[in-house]
Amino acid sequence: MAAEKESDWSGFFSGCVPPPNADSSARAMAEFAERHSAQGRRVVLVTSGGTKVPLESRTVRFLDNFSSGWRGAGSAEYFLELGYAVVFLHRHRSLSPFSRRYSGLNLLDALKAVPVAETTRWRVEADQAALPGIVPVLQRYTAVREAGLLLPVEFSTLSDYLYLLRAAAQALSPSGPKAMFYLAAAVSDFFIPASEMPEHKIQSGASPLQLTMQMVPKMLAPLVKDWAPHAFVTSFKLETDSSQLVARARKALATYRHQVVVANTLETRRVYVVIVTEDSQIDLALSENEVKQQQEIEEKIVQHLSECHTNFIEKSKSPE
Amino acid sequence: MAAEKESDWSGFFSGCVPPPNADSSARAMAEFAERHSAQGRRVVLVTSGGTKVPLESRTVRFLDNFSSGWRGAGSAEYFLELGYAVVFLHRHRSLSPFSRRYSGLNLLDALKAVPVAETTRWRVEADQAALPGIVPVLQRYTAVREAGLLLPVEFSTLSDYLYLLRAAAQALSPSGPKAMFYLAAAVSDFFIPASEMPEHKIQSGASPLQLTMQMVPKMLAPLVKDWAPHAFVTSFKLETDSSQLVARARKALATYRHQVVVANTLETRRVYVVIVTEDSQIDLALSENEVKQQQEIEEKIVQHLSECHTNFIEKSKSPE
Repeated sequence: MAAEKESDWSGFFSGCVPPPNADSSARAMAEFAERHSAQGRRVVLVTSGGTKVPLESRTVRFLDNFSSGWRGAGSAEYFLELGYAVVFLHRHRSLSPFSRRYSGLNLLDALKAVPVAETTRWRVEADQAALPGIVPVLQRYTAVREAGLLLPVEFSTLSDYLYLLRAAAQALSPSGPKAMFYLAAAVSDFFIPASEMPEHKIQSGASPLQLTMQMVPKMLAPLVKDWAPHAFVTSFKLETDSSQLVARARKALATYRHQVVVANTLETRRVYVVIVTEDSQIDLALSENEVKQQQEIEEKIVQHLSECHTNFIEKSKSPE
Repeated sequence: MAAEKESDWSGFFSGCVPPPNADSSARAMAEFAERHSAQGRRVVLVTSGGTKVPLESRTVRFLDNFSSGWRGAGSAEYFLELGYAVVFLHRHRSLSPFSRRYSGLNLLDALKAVPVAETTRWRVEADQAALPGIVPVLQRYTAVREAGLLLPVEFSTLSDYLYLLRAAAQALSPSGPKAMFYLAAAVSDFFIPASEMPEHKIQSGASPLQLTMQMVPKMLAPLVKDWAPHAFVTSFKLETDSSQLVARARKALATYRHQVVVANTLETRRVYVVIVTEDSQIDLALSENEVKQQQEIEEKIVQHLSECHTNFIEKSKSPE
């Protein structure tokens, strides 16, 4: 598989409508990256969640990928802990850093209205038993917000994601090797071009339904080559068949020539990954004891990658 | 289009694995319907949210339908206000009654930790400005919970939904004409039978991707005919092309012989619907002023249907 020609992805963009937040988010990301770079901080783009691919132009039906966003949201927290500024490019309604721990909860089950003595007013209090660890989580979240270290940017469809990814790459590119891309979103490989899409809801009379999906151009190619050529780029590879995992990771590295592939399988992804680079392959796993203590594999991934990133920055200062 | 033969839907079930909550939910729904019927209360099944259709058996990709669950969740609230007991069969992570108003919110933006004077403890308080109307909403929610008037049951895939719909129909059937079905979920028309599904993640090398989806058997047929033959059944029809709306609603009524179709278009669904019965067609719409006052079309739909339901119950007492 050869790297895609420029026409593939530029053709993709010319057939799509930019998302409503395209301009404002591009400005916000550029300002964010510039400010933190000026302060000597590393900046990471974390992508998270699945992408929607419409099957109709007035969309009722779409193709989707499995992804709660747990990995991306958790990783963003660990990057913040290590001093990174984080652009969090995430699917609408996927999990967010910090609040991810409370996502299964009905808000109303965790609150109660308490009358304020000698007034007609009510105080609304949270039940801390329903929100485990809420006080330290709130304190960390508030500190991050007040320091302006986290910039959330939202997408929903595949084309929104690709627009915003390009804008993010252009925003982080001036940070050179101190920028990292951590592409954990589960991006669709297939789409239906706007020109081939029916306008109205597909009628159910015409059985069976035949769908022909085209390949999405791999944006890793222009990202590494043109949009942010000096950055440290990590992609993710999720497979269900573990026998093909490392071979497919190596093939991606050879094709796109970026720094790292984090390879994982659907069933073991919460406890085991392989960090694959051009000349190394390192297993990261949680022990049974670590699982019991609710440690997360994302902490190990982020710790490891930040060390790789340090080496990458050093190396780029003194080219051999 | 003729009503489907029994073999169509029983064949569907024999090819699927029941959801993990099938037995416990069936028992809970039967107990719920029996208890409320014994107390003379009407019982409504509200279905809500979209359905997932897996494309691979170890699922990474799936086909989905657009639906936040706003209509179903809001309608459930209005049924509760009118004295119904509500079984709320909803898609995992779709909106829930009462809490739907706060779904866009990051929980952590609405809470603050306040030190409790002269202790090392913290109180966690909600910011009522970030949660408009929270005190009356909490009070209504708590009253409904304490009276046991709302039974939430969750599904995720199409086959989970169909299993639980059948169980719900069987649970509500003994309530006879006092049971209502309000089928607001956006159910997929297409699926890939388990026997035709690849086990592993579809590889992206093989471009373009051809998918062949089979028609989902229409469960409205056995529901009306066999599972709950004396109940009051309302289905929804969502189209994007308004010119075909009422004709398609009439066709569904003629095919399935249930009581009501609520017909609506994607673009105007929040302000306008047509209530179609065998011999009538009534427009319900929100005026500009009602929209300003944040009235909801669901209130009008539920009010209107509960009146139809009253007539239906009366009529069933004294058959001509």
